[in-house]
Amino acid sequence: MIEYAEAGPEVRAVFDDIMATRQTDWINNFWKALAHDPPTLQRTWGSVKQIMAPGALDPLTKEMVYLAVSASNQCPYCIASHTAAARKAGMSDAMFAELMAVVGMANETNRLASGYQVEIDGRFRPI
Amino acid sequence: MIEYAEAGPEVRAVFDDIMATRQTDWINNFWKALAHDPPTLQRTWGSVKQIMAPGALDPLTKEMVYLAVSASNQCPYCIASHTAAARKAGMSDAMFAELMAVVGMANETNRLASGYQVEIDGRFRPI
Amino acid sequence: MIEYAEAGPEVRAVFDDIMATRQTDWINNFWKALAHDPPTLQRTWGSVKQIMAPGALDPLTKEMVYLAVSASNQCPYCIASHTAAARKAGMSDAMFAELMAVVGMANETNRLASGYQVEIDGRFRPI
Amino acid sequence: MIEYAEAGPEVRAVFDDIMATRQTDWINNFWKALAHDPPTLQRTWGSVKQIMAPGALDPLTKEMVYLAVSASNQCPYCIASHTAAARKAGMSDAMFAELMAVVGMANETNRLASGYQVEIDGRFRPI
Amino acid sequence: MIEYAEAGPEVRAVFDDIMATRQTDWINNFWKALAHDPPTLQRTWGSVKQIMAPGALDPLTKEMVYLAVSASNQCPYCIASHTAAARKAGMSDAMFAELMAVVGMANETNRLASGYQVEIDGRFRPI
Amino acid sequence: MIEYAEAGPEVRAVFDDIMATRQTDWINNFWKALAHDPPTLQRTWGSVKQIMAPGALDPLTKEMVYLAVSASNQCPYCIASHTAAARKAGMSDAMFAELMAVVGMANETNRLASGYQVEIDGRFRPI
Repeated sequence: MIEYAEAGPEVRAVFDDIMATRQTDWINNFWKALAHDPPTLQRTWGSVKQIMAPGALDPLTKEMVYLAVSASNQCPYCIASHTAAARKAGMSDAMFAELMAVVGMANETNRLASGYQVEIDGRFRPI
Repeated sequence: MIEYAEAGPEVRAVFDDIMATRQTDWINNFWKALAHDPPTLQRTWGSVKQIMAPGALDPLTKEMVYLAVSASNQCPYCIASHTAAARKAGMSDAMFAELMAVVGMANETNRLASGYQVEIDGRFRPI
Repeated sequence: MIEYAEAGPEVRAVFDDIMATRQTDWINNFWKALAHDPPTLQRTWGSVKQIMAPGALDPLTKEMVYLAVSASNQCPYCIASHTAAARKAGMSDAMFAELMAVVGMANETNRLASGYQVEIDGRFRPI
Repeated sequence: MIEYAEAGPEVRAVFDDIMATRQTDWINNFWKALAHDPPTLQRTWGSVKQIMAPGALDPLTKEMVYLAVSASNQCPYCIASHTAAARKAGMSDAMFAELMAVVGMANETNRLASGYQVEIDGRFRPI
Repeated sequence: MIEYAEAGPEVRAVFDDIMATRQTDWINNFWKALAHDPPTLQRTWGSVKQIMAPGALDPLTKEMVYLAVSASNQCPYCIASHTAAARKAGMSDAMFAELMAVVGMANETNRLASGYQVEIDGRFRPI
Repeated sequence: MIEYAEAGPEVRAVFDDIMATRQTDWINNFWKALAHDPPTLQRTWGSVKQIMAPGALDPLTKEMVYLAVSASNQCPYCIASHTAAARKAGMSDAMFAELMAVVGMANETNRLASGYQVEIDGRFRPI
């Protein structure tokens, strides 16, 4: 882990932007780990910042999708961090419960579809 | 595939409920395949109907989460069918594009977090 | 694909053993593809032959487990080939239907367990 | 975690049914976590109870398939809980060892099949 | 698919850079699909260009790692495109065969490690 | 865990070969766990020894590919053990950083390719 105090100027610049963008005063371990590789730190933060900004989808929806994928992939760190992020963005207990229900069901039917070797309906195919 | 015309009464009852709930006049292949096993057909449809109903999350958000998980799992049938369902529920081109960007990014950072063996921050742990 | 007629002696020896062991007169594409790399062909067939032989688990159970994993991983080739193999080993329509139901449910609860960050019960931990 | 003593009547009813069905006097953490969302608790338990009941496949086979999928998905909680459940249903050391060997091999050949881009044999295609 | 002839200037700029960097005169479908979302096209190409450039690892090693991950994830498009890219970068038949052998074995032992609930050795833990 | 002191002769023979091959004086937990099933121990070690030997790919490249797959699969034990193995084989900090960047990017574009339902280019198809 690279702490702010021991970081060089290019890492500090990213840490500063993370804190400013997220309106927080601390950096979570993910970024401290990536700080061992400044190009990956810069590129990853730049991509996350661009992708998670408000757009056609609001930040809460984006955070819930991020959490849904992380739960589906069973990444413990990502589940913990994006549960916190989604909570901060406004995810209620009821929203979390429904989100997990959809994630679980999608994982179930994904395997039923593949196991039954279901052919894609003509109506679903891209034109 | 079990077509409506050849289905027994318990399968027809599920097919009728699918068409009524979705306000459509056709059944997609997934359900025709599950119709080979009426208990699984009934249970799966019952679960999907309950989970995808409007609640703390709106149907469009739920469909996009379903698509996000299916794209992450790389299930071709599920991607095709839930892209269609999300479109029907109101997903625009811009929403689809942002959704895929989040799915891609989540899959990337999930592996960076695991590969760098990032420890979960104390603040993220459930109390 | 390496066909029998064009295969060298070490590949033919494996092909012969596959046909003898499985009491069949043809080789499926998987082995014809691996034949491009004789060491992998020999090692993979040797492992499959050892693992799938009757033991504490009978061949039908083993084939159903193989299919369950392949369906969970969504490998189209493996689903098709191991559905055929399990059918040949005695899997009925009802067994297939129950197998898929378990695979689907396991994939659902795997994500609920991770998404809810459920801690392993003390009773479940290895001593 | 929702403990029995603090649970409402609908959660207690599910907990009671779990204990009666499994002939045990305790509830594992998975269900206590789902108890935060009673509809998901009820639906998930109802599905598990239906799917895992004896049928064309016996309970031991079903538990081993559940464990096989959980090991393949690398879900630590699910591996721990379903190893215990399969042991309780009669899985011996030798059965466990063969089960893991099949799971490992299936994961290996799934990737060889995809990596070599093996085409599905005509004989394996559903009619 | 957005073809070059119908693309706007920002998409064309990316297409031109792809062709120049790869010293080729055509664009594969992946980029034509992303062209529906210019920000994702630009960001993804920018990241790929940076990551795949020669560095501590040579381009052939990077392409083989990309193929290894794609085969492990069973992404048909990615397997096809990165097999072609690795071939172009110098991957021989023997290298491909050994690469697939490692990918298969890693997928097998990944599941054996999780299924046997192997505890991480003290010597392997990060300090 | 089966320790050397308590192991039978066939397990000891494998342990001895692991230590001789790797030029080390200890056995990591993975092999001690597999020692509960001597046939799987022998087969798995035999396969790993054959696959990881120098060939068309050098040992460092093979270890990095093993790590890449393990990180992509998010197997904590395998990430820890193969990071150590790759370090021992010569992986520098810079190589690790680039390796993880490729793994992350491959996981991202794998999902973009599937989510956008990109059709495989004719040029990429095997002849």
